[in-house]
Amino acid sequence: MMYVMRWLEYDSEACSAARALGVLGDRWTLLVLREIFNGVRRFDDISHHLGVARDVLTRRLTGLVDEGVVVRVPYQEPGHRTRYEYRLTPAGRELLPVLLALIAWGDKHRADGGVPVTLTHPHCGAPVHLELRCEADHVLPDDAKLWMTPGPGARIQSS
Amino acid sequence: MMYVMRWLEYDSEACSAARALGVLGDRWTLLVLREIFNGVRRFDDISHHLGVARDVLTRRLTGLVDEGVVVRVPYQEPGHRTRYEYRLTPAGRELLPVLLALIAWGDKHRADGGVPVTLTHPHCGAPVHLELRCEADHVLPDDAKLWMTPGPGARIQSS
Repeated sequence: MMYVMRWLEYDSEACSAARALGVLGDRWTLLVLREIFNGVRRFDDISHHLGVARDVLTRRLTGLVDEGVVVRVPYQEPGHRTRYEYRLTPAGRELLPVLLALIAWGDKHRADGGVPVTLTHPHCGAPVHLELRCEADHVLPDDAKLWMTPGPGARIQSS
Repeated sequence: MMYVMRWLEYDSEACSAARALGVLGDRWTLLVLREIFNGVRRFDDISHHLGVARDVLTRRLTGLVDEGVVVRVPYQEPGHRTRYEYRLTPAGRELLPVLLALIAWGDKHRADGGVPVTLTHPHCGAPVHLELRCEADHVLPDDAKLWMTPGPGARIQSS
């Protein structure tokens, strides 16, 4: 990015990316979210499909529930005890662009065997992609340089 | 997302998001990248600004170099020994949408004290944002449902 502000002079914790990563935590958390986005909602299904240990999965799901990104919903199949599945909250569904940005980068730089999944608009069938635009409606490239200026929530670095 | 494919039947590792996360690794790696994007390129500056232990930072930077996302460039100030700074490669610069998607979500859901940083287009000064569009030029909301279909790189789950 480019900078009107000198980033080093500002508190690195007053950053929306850092706060979003505080919710997402790590690689497993994002992969768990991907499963739920892809309709894999039940604990056993997620655990088996991802190959993730049950205690790790429990911690990640509890974290996502605490952060208000997923909710735990009971379900019961005839003859079985109550179990739980996990569904995205409205805030959780809005993490879609994070996943799509990761997918776009991986499709371009880590898919020598071909793109694993194609994502299309259900209404018209056309492929979808994230586009970087400004409010004057210019389209910017993925490696654009941007101006950064401090917003009302910026904090000066204390030491 | 929506699905023509049944995600559970496919190998969860044949996924571009998983591969991109394999590069990005974890929270620290993404925060280190954010520093470099923001022009903080020298080891000591990154370590101090992020408050990250030097051994952790060394591992994360080495990983980013190995993945071809940053390069290590020597520099020398008069009277000092050679030191190194880290710069984004072209592939690294294209991770910008991942950071921007995280920032957008954090700005909306984790910035009660106001937005920390404003990002604008250097050419016209207008704020920039990521937009989800299809190739028929429909704009989709951030929580859109998308169709997923298997691409040439999809793999069926083996067990």
